[in-house]
Amino acid sequence: MNASTEPGAEQRTKDWWRTSIIEMSPGVIRYRGYPIEQLIGRVSFAQMVWLMTRGELPSEPQGRLLEAALTAGVDHGPQAPSIAIARMAATCGVGLNNAMASAVNVLGDVHGGAGEQALELYQAIAQRMDKGDALVQAVKQGVDDAIAAHGKFVSGFGHRFHAVDPRTAPLLQLVDEAACAGVVSGRFAQIARAVEGELAARKGGKRIPMNVDGATAVVYAELGFPAPLARGLFCLSRSVGILAHAWEQTQQGGRNKGPIPREYIWSYDGPAPRDVPAD
Amino acid sequence: MNASTEPGAEQRTKDWWRTSIIEMSPGVIRYRGYPIEQLIGRVSFAQMVWLMTRGELPSEPQGRLLEAALTAGVDHGPQAPSIAIARMAATCGVGLNNAMASAVNVLGDVHGGAGEQALELYQAIAQRMDKGDALVQAVKQGVDDAIAAHGKFVSGFGHRFHAVDPRTAPLLQLVDEAACAGVVSGRFAQIARAVEGELAARKGGKRIPMNVDGATAVVYAELGFPAPLARGLFCLSRSVGILAHAWEQTQQGGRNKGPIPREYIWSYDGPAPRDVPAD
Amino acid sequence: MNASTEPGAEQRTKDWWRTSIIEMSPGVIRYRGYPIEQLIGRVSFAQMVWLMTRGELPSEPQGRLLEAALTAGVDHGPQAPSIAIARMAATCGVGLNNAMASAVNVLGDVHGGAGEQALELYQAIAQRMDKGDALVQAVKQGVDDAIAAHGKFVSGFGHRFHAVDPRTAPLLQLVDEAACAGVVSGRFAQIARAVEGELAARKGGKRIPMNVDGATAVVYAELGFPAPLARGLFCLSRSVGILAHAWEQTQQGGRNKGPIPREYIWSYDGPAPRDVPAD
Amino acid sequence: MNASTEPGAEQRTKDWWRTSIIEMSPGVIRYRGYPIEQLIGRVSFAQMVWLMTRGELPSEPQGRLLEAALTAGVDHGPQAPSIAIARMAATCGVGLNNAMASAVNVLGDVHGGAGEQALELYQAIAQRMDKGDALVQAVKQGVDDAIAAHGKFVSGFGHRFHAVDPRTAPLLQLVDEAACAGVVSGRFAQIARAVEGELAARKGGKRIPMNVDGATAVVYAELGFPAPLARGLFCLSRSVGILAHAWEQTQQGGRNKGPIPREYIWSYDGPAPRDVPAD
Repeated sequence: MNASTEPGAEQRTKDWWRTSIIEMSPGVIRYRGYPIEQLIGRVSFAQMVWLMTRGELPSEPQGRLLEAALTAGVDHGPQAPSIAIARMAATCGVGLNNAMASAVNVLGDVHGGAGEQALELYQAIAQRMDKGDALVQAVKQGVDDAIAAHGKFVSGFGHRFHAVDPRTAPLLQLVDEAACAGVVSGRFAQIARAVEGELAARKGGKRIPMNVDGATAVVYAELGFPAPLARGLFCLSRSVGILAHAWEQTQQGGRNKGPIPREYIWSYDGPAPRDVPAD
Repeated sequence: MNASTEPGAEQRTKDWWRTSIIEMSPGVIRYRGYPIEQLIGRVSFAQMVWLMTRGELPSEPQGRLLEAALTAGVDHGPQAPSIAIARMAATCGVGLNNAMASAVNVLGDVHGGAGEQALELYQAIAQRMDKGDALVQAVKQGVDDAIAAHGKFVSGFGHRFHAVDPRTAPLLQLVDEAACAGVVSGRFAQIARAVEGELAARKGGKRIPMNVDGATAVVYAELGFPAPLARGLFCLSRSVGILAHAWEQTQQGGRNKGPIPREYIWSYDGPAPRDVPAD
Repeated sequence: MNASTEPGAEQRTKDWWRTSIIEMSPGVIRYRGYPIEQLIGRVSFAQMVWLMTRGELPSEPQGRLLEAALTAGVDHGPQAPSIAIARMAATCGVGLNNAMASAVNVLGDVHGGAGEQALELYQAIAQRMDKGDALVQAVKQGVDDAIAAHGKFVSGFGHRFHAVDPRTAPLLQLVDEAACAGVVSGRFAQIARAVEGELAARKGGKRIPMNVDGATAVVYAELGFPAPLARGLFCLSRSVGILAHAWEQTQQGGRNKGPIPREYIWSYDGPAPRDVPAD
Repeated sequence: MNASTEPGAEQRTKDWWRTSIIEMSPGVIRYRGYPIEQLIGRVSFAQMVWLMTRGELPSEPQGRLLEAALTAGVDHGPQAPSIAIARMAATCGVGLNNAMASAVNVLGDVHGGAGEQALELYQAIAQRMDKGDALVQAVKQGVDDAIAAHGKFVSGFGHRFHAVDPRTAPLLQLVDEAACAGVVSGRFAQIARAVEGELAARKGGKRIPMNVDGATAVVYAELGFPAPLARGLFCLSRSVGILAHAWEQTQQGGRNKGPIPREYIWSYDGPAPRDVPAD
């Protein structure tokens, strides 16, 4: 680059932040090229999520399928750490935005990453099939790899509270309908069911049913989302429940509400009382 | 309460967390009484937001109006602190959930509270009218009170970047249409426009146009949301842009990306170099 | 400013971030003018906290008094929302930094702001005395104002768990000793004790003893810290306990640990089961 | 366990939270067995950090060495994402606690994990030596493994801004002095220097000097801290700078301060303007 074409300081500063998501000038806001005034009222919130994260507007049926997955994960009650945190935060004198932040923050690999891991599993199986493996063989190998990487629990299957997760069947049914209508291929629903079958076979026939993470991962895979966005979408979805609980707790009142009733002090198993040694 | 009806320890523990949002038993999840399997695929995401935060399902047109407001606030580019934080976080080796948390967290009174404050203003004006004040009088008094409480900038009006905020007109048009259709009363659109008129009058005719916060507050007021939820809904809305930017930045790469290019060190105006005094 | 002296883009970018805290060039780091290599090993951590937040190095005795206050607030057990959040977060697959963030975040007005409010009260009383009010009169008026602003609980006095807060006496004793040694004036210890006396008088002699927030606020006031830093210093202090608990929980293990044992589902008081209306 | 010894609901609730860090009863607080009133004013803040995270009080010289490492990492200026986030947050209408949270949150693997990774490397080398490897051989193998696991940059060595990190030499000198005095073994300082030598040899003699993360990891390793706490201790340390910058920014004022000056809009490289397709 010679001196005359070298970008000036102003340009270097602008280039420090580069995006293909949003373009603005005074009076103008465009997302992915579309003017905001054309989007408002004409696309669904789920279509907007898709446009922002992936760059193109989905069709209306694609948007509805995404919407179903977002609906499925909104809440799992005050025993989930994310929801409990939102409620406790609301009693500590912070704003709803802060309560939401502390709560969304814990949706990490264990609490919020199961969908991402399930999607990775499905995609890995699909890639084996693209290279010529039969479904059964690809599933066996994929499950082996998942167990080797993450331990004996295969993300997306089994639930410590629900013997059968009530969110799975309606999601799969919507995927099946969308596959019939040509909206999606149905390939990942097939893969996920085969994983469920493989897991049952390994347990001597005892079913370890697909849970909400496994089922939403089917939706996201069918719709072409990359795996890390499965976690991001779950964060959006759960944010709704987080907000609802933070708001309900705000209305219930309470100050510095802890996890258990005040009359129950925790269990202590440390050193017996002792004195600080003399200097 | 006599001894025999006094709740036992187990009951006291259960009662420590009390909610009217979600009921669960193995295999069953109900939100506000509705089984999850009936909600998935049949209600829009915006209807779900409404159900969770307010307790009842809105009509479809109400849901669409809420959806328009949620769509309007998703993003305002990398110069907004929330978006910049999401992008910087994404380069620091944290998950998308963490990037979202750090970013949503800053949607406080200044960055995320304008809609809440605008809604409070509209509601205060409406209450004056309920007590018999004329619109003009109620607006004058409401604006006086808002300025006394929050300073000369009236939240929801004027924008430091957009002379005219492109998100306002389409939102108000949707409210007007919904008012014509009997979905909402149109009362708060009238109030907000009167506030805009009052502000112009105080500036000798110079218009200080309603911005996205003022316009979404109209939507939320028309739909009956309490003021604090205006902030919560904005957090949900902006979370979409936050996620999109965190994800885009992840794909762009970068490690520990700071706010300005590395060749520009910040400006220092502290003490001149000096030695730590001898002990 | 004429064209020739108008700062260029590079300068404007540098000026966007301006600080008197830190100056850097390759191989050089100076905090408040002092080279880092002279500070390491020669100042205490508390002196460093003081230097960074206030601009000058404190004397060693001032540093020790600050250290005592920082030590007093590190932990109040897993029933405090901040600590519970740290522990729950640690089971969700996030890093220690994330667990600390979710927890520190809730140290808001209610959980973390009592010291700040107590300090404001002491300073308001001192200002009245500077204008000529007698101690007794200034205290009465200050307490009246605090109650009017924040409600019947005066921040820094009384504790829902400890009839007598065991952290108060040792802190006040250190302040008294420092006052005898001329390190501090002792004025704010006198004011705080007078507030305690006034509160007891209003309760017909029933003592509402100064708690840890009231006592650390005495230390911070004696050392000349502005009120908002009382909250900031408490955040630093409690971060130690937060880290310790997050780390202990990590070692204990657990996945998605919620606030109460899994066999206790929460109490539900919402609508009875119902069907989603037909479209 | 038979029915009569099975714990009741109250006990199960208490056992849900179990800790060896803190024991409390009304009027009593003990950390690791030591009563709080004996700790306040008698131990340094660094000793308290050690007691809380590890269970025993360190000697005074151990505490001072820890203090030096905590001092070294407090701040690296507004170009570091953590500091920039703290400053931007402070202009968004959130509390100092929230600003600290958003900032500490990003101290993840890339921004806050280098010390942890360096400590793991040193420990892995030490373990090889314990099994009989010579220093040179253990270092070669350890570096190979680190590069295989984390890529070509070995955490703790090299700095993109400082050719020589000014924090390294004073920290190593303190470790050497402590080794002479028998406070620590000096083993990890030797290992770290051997790593530095190995890296230079691989670069044909070009030195890639140990940075602050590599040097604080030496301190933490000498003092016996487990690797994950290196990150936790860095979070405590950097929290000081984060607080100082958030507070300075609060005093400077500003509302919704973004990363770059307002006259520089970011660079856009997305789709050209286009219309939303007709429904």
